[in-house]
Amino acid sequence: MHITFCCADTRPEPWLEGLRAALPGATVSEWRPGAAQADHAVVWSPPQQFLDEQPGLKGLFNIGAGVDALLKLKLPPAAKVVRLDDAGMSVQMAEYVCHAVIRHFREFDGYEADMGAGRWSFRKPRTRADFAVGVMGLGVLGQRVAKALRHFEFPVHGWSRSAKAVEGVHCHAGADQFDGFLSACRVLVNLLPLTPDTRDILNRRTLSRLQPGGYLINVARGAHLVDEDLIALLDEGHLAGATLDVFRTEPLPAEHGFWKHPKITLTPHTSARTLRDESIAQIAGKILALERGEPVAGVVDPVRGY
Amino acid sequence: MHITFCCADTRPEPWLEGLRAALPGATVSEWRPGAAQADHAVVWSPPQQFLDEQPGLKGLFNIGAGVDALLKLKLPPAAKVVRLDDAGMSVQMAEYVCHAVIRHFREFDGYEADMGAGRWSFRKPRTRADFAVGVMGLGVLGQRVAKALRHFEFPVHGWSRSAKAVEGVHCHAGADQFDGFLSACRVLVNLLPLTPDTRDILNRRTLSRLQPGGYLINVARGAHLVDEDLIALLDEGHLAGATLDVFRTEPLPAEHGFWKHPKITLTPHTSARTLRDESIAQIAGKILALERGEPVAGVVDPVRGY
Repeated sequence: MHITFCCADTRPEPWLEGLRAALPGATVSEWRPGAAQADHAVVWSPPQQFLDEQPGLKGLFNIGAGVDALLKLKLPPAAKVVRLDDAGMSVQMAEYVCHAVIRHFREFDGYEADMGAGRWSFRKPRTRADFAVGVMGLGVLGQRVAKALRHFEFPVHGWSRSAKAVEGVHCHAGADQFDGFLSACRVLVNLLPLTPDTRDILNRRTLSRLQPGGYLINVARGAHLVDEDLIALLDEGHLAGATLDVFRTEPLPAEHGFWKHPKITLTPHTSARTLRDESIAQIAGKILALERGEPVAGVVDPVRGY
Repeated sequence: MHITFCCADTRPEPWLEGLRAALPGATVSEWRPGAAQADHAVVWSPPQQFLDEQPGLKGLFNIGAGVDALLKLKLPPAAKVVRLDDAGMSVQMAEYVCHAVIRHFREFDGYEADMGAGRWSFRKPRTRADFAVGVMGLGVLGQRVAKALRHFEFPVHGWSRSAKAVEGVHCHAGADQFDGFLSACRVLVNLLPLTPDTRDILNRRTLSRLQPGGYLINVARGAHLVDEDLIALLDEGHLAGATLDVFRTEPLPAEHGFWKHPKITLTPHTSARTLRDESIAQIAGKILALERGEPVAGVVDPVRGY
């Protein structure tokens, strides 16, 4: 069995060594144009040429949770696209989102500014019941985030394409229930996959439905959000703030209005990093399962887009 | 039955109204010098004169978790001292501590500085296994905090005066196991009651035992910490930082070295506020239980100090 590795923005050596150690019966090498046919590929944003030259691939293992970049390409006909499920990402996502929600709810930015100016301040505690949090996307990451928010006793709503049941979470599903979901929430967390249906889903119409003083946390993809609509709603005062980890263009271009906006907190796409060791172990296990003809978790439906 | 109310820094009207509604069979009034004898008192830092004039009190209900200020006074001989247990404080404490731990572990202060300066930065993810968190004090608040930290998969150690068992937490107990507890931890969270045994417990000797790059979160009482020892260990580099919510003198005096220290995050004693409605309901329930001769939770052992 031969495994090829073709990942943009990733140092290959530690991945190659890790995959060789995890799959001692396989040969593992970095892809070069004209290389021999491989059985499986470990990929991140590969060039179309790679896919064109590897028509016999059985598995394409994406080293991230989102496969939107991969699904834009023409794929080998028999290749299953497999995304990472969890591999240490869900706990990071829960951390990131809980940190952002707590920071906003408890006004820690405000206290930091007060104390930085030498002011011992008093702010009236806010009421948890007024801070319902909505989680868009109830896959592995979304469910973990919802559960973590419940731990802090926030009212939690969830929305997904198809109906789901998550303990302690008010679940809404499908286009019909989207507006009702939005108007039940003050804080909105986006964890949706990026598909033609979800592109631009965070826009003036939808974000206006959040309760007054609404707050957006986007940890999915930049193309879910209509940037200028967010800025307008912040400037008009309907939204109180936003924490953004992902952007239409990354790195965020120097001239973008998000950089200096006083109500926006930015991080450089760091909410849930791919952890190499966990990912290698998971991918190696799935390759062996596919080879034995067993089902594996995380196989993408190319029509649905996730 | 007569209930008297004597709380410093607290607007009495909403408490009086709430207690009257919760205890319709009782008279409830604010204490004045020379007032009639009461059966029970709701107190926060009362003057000695109040206690001297009310020798017949059966219950002294403290509207906070820490009773150190009350135990400094000479108390009526038959009065049980009862502290609030939870009443909405433990979830606030879990929020505060998790926010501080996550913010430090994930370097969100650093990312905020990077992005504020227009820099799209990369920081190598830290390893969760290197960030063991130790919780000092395993009462209602400490156990809730430890549980919340476990939710984010941090290794969690606990230390208490007498041995406890908390699921998922490495529990240490007593003076003999204190040094071993400290050296197992990188982040230290203080939730101890303030007693003669615990005053100054966070000092050069003890904080030096934390793993290099150690981090202190003090949410108990300012007098647990020897301020100048913390500043020295931060300046020497053994400790990486601290988040402090409580101080020897509050408000923190203008000339104090904590105000402008670059490695210290300050908040104005806001980690867990007394929530009025929850507290009134709890105190009313305990007054009725005591009157029926039933045991109540949170009765303080004056010798032990909590």
